[in-house]
Amino acid sequence: MLDALCFWLETDLIMVKRKTTRRAFLKGSVAIGGAALTAGTSVKAGEGDPLITETQEWAQFTGDGVDATPYGMPIDFESDVVRRNVEWLTADTISSVNFTPIHALDGTITPQGCAFERNHSGAIELPKEDYRLMINGLVDRPLVFTYEDLERFPRENHVYFCECAANTGMEWAGAQLNGAQFTHGMIHNMEYTGIPLRTILNEAGLKSEGSWIFVEGADASSNGRSIPIEKALDDVFVAFKANGEALRKEHGYPVRLVVPGWEGNMWVKWLRRVEVTDQPIESREETSKYTDTLADGTSRKWTWVMDAKSVITSPSPQAPITHKSGPLVISGLAWSGHGAITRVDVTLDGGKNWFQARLAKPGERKALTRFYLDIDWNGKDMFLQSRAHDETGYVQPTKEQLRNVRGLNSIYHNNCIQTWWVKKGGEVENVEVS
Amino acid sequence: MLDALCFWLETDLIMVKRKTTRRAFLKGSVAIGGAALTAGTSVKAGEGDPLITETQEWAQFTGDGVDATPYGMPIDFESDVVRRNVEWLTADTISSVNFTPIHALDGTITPQGCAFERNHSGAIELPKEDYRLMINGLVDRPLVFTYEDLERFPRENHVYFCECAANTGMEWAGAQLNGAQFTHGMIHNMEYTGIPLRTILNEAGLKSEGSWIFVEGADASSNGRSIPIEKALDDVFVAFKANGEALRKEHGYPVRLVVPGWEGNMWVKWLRRVEVTDQPIESREETSKYTDTLADGTSRKWTWVMDAKSVITSPSPQAPITHKSGPLVISGLAWSGHGAITRVDVTLDGGKNWFQARLAKPGERKALTRFYLDIDWNGKDMFLQSRAHDETGYVQPTKEQLRNVRGLNSIYHNNCIQTWWVKKGGEVENVEVS
Repeated sequence: MLDALCFWLETDLIMVKRKTTRRAFLKGSVAIGGAALTAGTSVKAGEGDPLITETQEWAQFTGDGVDATPYGMPIDFESDVVRRNVEWLTADTISSVNFTPIHALDGTITPQGCAFERNHSGAIELPKEDYRLMINGLVDRPLVFTYEDLERFPRENHVYFCECAANTGMEWAGAQLNGAQFTHGMIHNMEYTGIPLRTILNEAGLKSEGSWIFVEGADASSNGRSIPIEKALDDVFVAFKANGEALRKEHGYPVRLVVPGWEGNMWVKWLRRVEVTDQPIESREETSKYTDTLADGTSRKWTWVMDAKSVITSPSPQAPITHKSGPLVISGLAWSGHGAITRVDVTLDGGKNWFQARLAKPGERKALTRFYLDIDWNGKDMFLQSRAHDETGYVQPTKEQLRNVRGLNSIYHNNCIQTWWVKKGGEVENVEVS
Repeated sequence: MLDALCFWLETDLIMVKRKTTRRAFLKGSVAIGGAALTAGTSVKAGEGDPLITETQEWAQFTGDGVDATPYGMPIDFESDVVRRNVEWLTADTISSVNFTPIHALDGTITPQGCAFERNHSGAIELPKEDYRLMINGLVDRPLVFTYEDLERFPRENHVYFCECAANTGMEWAGAQLNGAQFTHGMIHNMEYTGIPLRTILNEAGLKSEGSWIFVEGADASSNGRSIPIEKALDDVFVAFKANGEALRKEHGYPVRLVVPGWEGNMWVKWLRRVEVTDQPIESREETSKYTDTLADGTSRKWTWVMDAKSVITSPSPQAPITHKSGPLVISGLAWSGHGAITRVDVTLDGGKNWFQARLAKPGERKALTRFYLDIDWNGKDMFLQSRAHDETGYVQPTKEQLRNVRGLNSIYHNNCIQTWWVKKGGEVENVEVS
């Protein structure tokens, strides 16, 4: 403590006038809160703001030392920025989903801690030393790899989004859930480290008749899925790190499959087996589930790719506008399983007039793209929508366009344009416009 | 539970033969462990590996439901991948540093939870509603901003590394600390969201005589630093999110300064004031500290830029090699405060022969670059080094070259080539070679 104290004494605290109490600060803060500052409005320093003119509480005492947080958690004030479940969605939290708090995030990277998780029989605890990956079926040499074996192959790094096919699935019949977290939060975007699946398939030696693979996990559900060999040899990836560190338990520690641009259910967690076959297995996860029943009663299957989609994350129902009018940042996310986002449009009036949004960075293939539109809000009602374009020329459809083709029986692959009704006071509601 | 159970019963567990106990698995695992698998060596499936031929424990029971982790922490097995302090380094953990576990990470993004933190009077707890940022001095209009005001300016996203000037500072006199975490772990790399400082300086209106800024934090140390106006108007950034979410308390919640490519001490946390001046302030943090005393007793000052540097993160003392010989991934990080990394070389024999490493992605300006060299290790001693090149043509120097110019009195800005001695059994030690 002496070290710290000396340090403090040596330091110029230029603006110190007099000490005050915590209570005084809060009082001052409330008074200023009423002054309705907006960006671009000046306030003279030192005039009437005790948070500036008096010694702030935080400048009078030392804070936590570096040993306090060997692994740092978010500050208490942000304790509402967490994954959330929708209780009525499933019978049990085993075989359920929780949602990324995208309304409160910015940028493109999703921290693992708040990245959505979906599991079919719970998140299992699989030690690295007990991990095995088998490659069998139509190969020259069936192989079994330990975790350490996988670490010896040449590694790559890639940023990809993972979206559950059921994301926005509750919205087919109408506007249901009041928050971007719940309507669009079955998505995350991470930097993966691992090895291309083709590396280990080639190690096993593909037989010429091998045209599909069947992948399954080590959990009780096993969650088996068939993937065409072309995709398997293209960009399918065996990942053991996300955002630099080991996968979280709920994301498939120690190894998961990454199937870029394709529905999240195929990104098998706790990956334990890849069988090379000459036909699809037609498992439960690709017949009774993860198929889309159309208006005429027939079902689409093999609907793997996640089409271009976007959503405004702020303002949104959980992130209302807190000032009366003036400069406002409209922000959101766009993505496409077919490649890079090339453009995003935003409308303030439910689709009558569109403005081209600013992309924070050029779109990356099969990864989230952040967009912004900076406006001077007049304080009145808005019907906000965003519309994504991808490198193939595809344009995100309206809900009506999608319903015309797919009917109302689907759960999965709802990539329609989302509408937020911003009301006069800044409150935001999930609605449909026609 | 019924839902999950039905699901499990419906699912094909193709490889199930018979149930076994946890004890049996561990026994099997040990037996296999002795088989010394290496990447590229095949093992026939179903022969002798009970982890494959018997029903795994994790496939017999459901795991954690999705409500278990509203904010997910790393799995228990990874509990050693945390920030660590070096006890003898400072008198107290207040005014100290802890280090990023770079030996255990891969890719380029550093998760906030294990990103190094350095503070001079502890990590303070500053609520958003009490946050104020003052712009004063040589401006047309002194301004005070609330947190919400800052949110109304046009936002940008940028990935930048932050390196403490003292990183590798204990190594000037010789090899001291046995681990990349401790020799090179005062660095992290995040995707920041915020606004360019020039935006709010322009809002206040710069007077023509304004040629420097002085920035300070709201903590007791205040940690004031002078920055030339050219840098302030170039890429200095006012950040309020890192890797998508709010800054951690220990990284300056709710707002920190980001000074791309320049020493970490200038990245003022809990940013509370930016004063425009016509000269540097010559504060404690830029006179008695963060200057470099040379052999002749004079000191270099204004040594802001972090020169090009690299380190092999694995293998390294905390990440020894665990197999006897064969395929081995050598992996590390490179960065430059002057721009992008263009090339990294790796030597296995202490500098006699160099091989060009593979960059995981083209180097990004002022951000970490991951490199790999894939070798077939003969099982014998190696003296591993890496050498970074940046876009200016600068090449990372040897420790000898650096000492010839700077002497032995410095603490800061040691960007010399690091040597790891890999021994026959895979153990790794921090050494110097001449």
